[in-house]
Amino acid sequence: MNVMVWYENQPLPQDVEGERCTYPEGIQGALGHLFAGQPDMRVRTAVMQDAYQGFHPDDLRWADVLVYYSHKHWRDVEDVHVDALQERVLEGMGLVLLHSAHASKIFSRLMGTRTNLLNWHEDGEGQRVWIVNPAHEIVKGLDVQSFTIPEDETYCEYFHIPQPEEQVLLTTSESGDVFRSGCCWTRGKGKIFYFSAGHETYPVFYQKEVVQIILNAVRWANRGAGLNI
Amino acid sequence: MNVMVWYENQPLPQDVEGERCTYPEGIQGALGHLFAGQPDMRVRTAVMQDAYQGFHPDDLRWADVLVYYSHKHWRDVEDVHVDALQERVLEGMGLVLLHSAHASKIFSRLMGTRTNLLNWHEDGEGQRVWIVNPAHEIVKGLDVQSFTIPEDETYCEYFHIPQPEEQVLLTTSESGDVFRSGCCWTRGKGKIFYFSAGHETYPVFYQKEVVQIILNAVRWANRGAGLNI
Amino acid sequence: MNVMVWYENQPLPQDVEGERCTYPEGIQGALGHLFAGQPDMRVRTAVMQDAYQGFHPDDLRWADVLVYYSHKHWRDVEDVHVDALQERVLEGMGLVLLHSAHASKIFSRLMGTRTNLLNWHEDGEGQRVWIVNPAHEIVKGLDVQSFTIPEDETYCEYFHIPQPEEQVLLTTSESGDVFRSGCCWTRGKGKIFYFSAGHETYPVFYQKEVVQIILNAVRWANRGAGLNI
Amino acid sequence: MNVMVWYENQPLPQDVEGERCTYPEGIQGALGHLFAGQPDMRVRTAVMQDAYQGFHPDDLRWADVLVYYSHKHWRDVEDVHVDALQERVLEGMGLVLLHSAHASKIFSRLMGTRTNLLNWHEDGEGQRVWIVNPAHEIVKGLDVQSFTIPEDETYCEYFHIPQPEEQVLLTTSESGDVFRSGCCWTRGKGKIFYFSAGHETYPVFYQKEVVQIILNAVRWANRGAGLNI
Repeated sequence: MNVMVWYENQPLPQDVEGERCTYPEGIQGALGHLFAGQPDMRVRTAVMQDAYQGFHPDDLRWADVLVYYSHKHWRDVEDVHVDALQERVLEGMGLVLLHSAHASKIFSRLMGTRTNLLNWHEDGEGQRVWIVNPAHEIVKGLDVQSFTIPEDETYCEYFHIPQPEEQVLLTTSESGDVFRSGCCWTRGKGKIFYFSAGHETYPVFYQKEVVQIILNAVRWANRGAGLNI
Repeated sequence: MNVMVWYENQPLPQDVEGERCTYPEGIQGALGHLFAGQPDMRVRTAVMQDAYQGFHPDDLRWADVLVYYSHKHWRDVEDVHVDALQERVLEGMGLVLLHSAHASKIFSRLMGTRTNLLNWHEDGEGQRVWIVNPAHEIVKGLDVQSFTIPEDETYCEYFHIPQPEEQVLLTTSESGDVFRSGCCWTRGKGKIFYFSAGHETYPVFYQKEVVQIILNAVRWANRGAGLNI
Repeated sequence: MNVMVWYENQPLPQDVEGERCTYPEGIQGALGHLFAGQPDMRVRTAVMQDAYQGFHPDDLRWADVLVYYSHKHWRDVEDVHVDALQERVLEGMGLVLLHSAHASKIFSRLMGTRTNLLNWHEDGEGQRVWIVNPAHEIVKGLDVQSFTIPEDETYCEYFHIPQPEEQVLLTTSESGDVFRSGCCWTRGKGKIFYFSAGHETYPVFYQKEVVQIILNAVRWANRGAGLNI
Repeated sequence: MNVMVWYENQPLPQDVEGERCTYPEGIQGALGHLFAGQPDMRVRTAVMQDAYQGFHPDDLRWADVLVYYSHKHWRDVEDVHVDALQERVLEGMGLVLLHSAHASKIFSRLMGTRTNLLNWHEDGEGQRVWIVNPAHEIVKGLDVQSFTIPEDETYCEYFHIPQPEEQVLLTTSESGDVFRSGCCWTRGKGKIFYFSAGHETYPVFYQKEVVQIILNAVRWANRGAGLNI
């Protein structure tokens, strides 16, 4: 399974103390190492500063699943790359969108809504993630009804998405917010998972439950060979 | 539109101080008055102590929508009445289940799951109800993203239901619980709405947002004449 | 309820014998008369040759529901109007798309897929429309499991749409095709219904079952006043 | 992965010429051989004439997925076994129901509807199976938009099921019927797939596309170890 990780990488992590300390090789580096350690995965990583803003046609063709992390510079991705991403998803490339990638043009494009719209506050609150579809492949191996993330940015409804085809996770914050945090859709032959955890200044992507969910999601989103139609 | 209200009525409200004070004519009385005041609704009310445990065949045939409230004595409803209720829902009678009616045999029967299973604590916590499907008829007229209920019993996930066909509402509690609180399904020609608000000792059914949701739900659940098939 | 009808109107119906004979006032005229005859509806009609290509901002603001019919010239609608249409749907304007409007930019935009992709042949085959969600408001009043359309263009799977939130109708053709022909989605506060019947050279929009479905759909898509959020 | 195959086996296949010739070891034998040939599957088979009507508690505990085939004697399965089956599905045992198992008590129990209701005729018509969710794991490896089954019993709408959570397949017959033939649901931790192909007197379960779908479905329905909640 070919997994590509793309990171916005702006501002550069070295200019953000929290991020530099938490993810010294960048988020693409941390996630890249995670996938590289799996026996069934090969990995490539890219950032917005690369050629084609990191969406090289060869890489997109190569990828079975794209793991995508962006934040405030989502407007800077050129439409020509969004077109190419959409085409590849419709052809069957899985797409796993993490945290602030909710605002990305590709997510809005695939959903038909203003996915950048949600409520948020960034104060390192504790979060509790609730499993509401315990049959789902994406929560395989999690032997709990819920788990906590000690500190993260808080996202809150109303989140401007179409109703998920499968609602897997909800997240609540200490101060009483709620968010549809783990959501599945399909578009054409592509499977899409959005997961809201993981602000870049907290070590969320090292937490074992989060790691399990992301690995499960990548495997779920991998449609595999033998594409029909 | 013919609306029937059924209440378990056990223990008798006069033996429960909170309920006696809040709903002096019982919950069936309070809801009955609400519906009777609508120009498009006719009402009948029944309780478990009536003939046929309140499910008289003539009333079930008459009803376009049944509003159902039960609590701990859900096991006492005889299966022959559950059979009749299921038959009528499949034929097109709408069903609006309130609060502790989640445990009712008819709800489990229609869902195929153990709908009595959820987490709960009864300490009059404040609740916040979030609208996550703002296009839905059931939230028509609510000009808010969320509203609060000052005091109610708290319900919490995991709630043992199939994924709702339409998830309209989520509820959080002050102490950090979350619940899929407003959920739609169809079975045969029948439309089903479950709404978790309204413990019998709090005046929740007098609150204007809750009233609006219940009235909308009854109208949504009314399939109307001209049943096909 | 304010209903706006928009028609591509290209080629001009007077240049298409079948259309000129069947809909002498154009499809916008035929549908406009239908809605104007309803006690609860006010109507405006527009065509692509009008100012703003028929999407005047005042009309879009006025409309509770837009009924949209386009065909081969769907590429000619300027993106600025597609932007305005999407904005209004997300704000709560209902959208009923008929027949060849599947290819419209606004439908693709809201779905995130290539909705222009389907199989088709135009030879006036008989069609059979099957009701697979008999509880749905859109089939209210239809006392049948299926009905036939004597002659229409044939559409066939694979139809490049996300799974409908509610699948109401399927259509089969005499020669063995099948199509997901009546499909509901929501985007933001807007409700969307696509219905595949009604090639412009057949009198499909005069058939009573089709009329019933379109009227039901317009009423279902009308979110009404009191928009929240 | 532990796969259990259960067959009604009534009338005995030796008394039905078509079945005896097509499946000399019974359908449980044919399916059992199929699964036994897979490197990731272990198999047990049972029939209604066995102890516990073939639903031995040890076998149900052992099974990760149950493949279930019944026909006209569905009423003979005792409710105590239906209770046990439902319990195991809710706990996470996958359930793959084939063809006339639509009428089984366990399917009705899990759906909440009269799943025995559908239209049918048994005259060996050709069937065409259409893939309408090409992203789904259950159609992995099928490089087509549709495929044909030369001869089978015909099932037709209206099929009395709740809307599938995922509609994967539709089937049309030569004479113009249509059926929602490949349908997914979840109940509790259990994943459920119904597939309508495979009357016992036709060699449908030897056809490569059908084999692929059944193998994919068993793998999809296998929730695996580490059950949560």
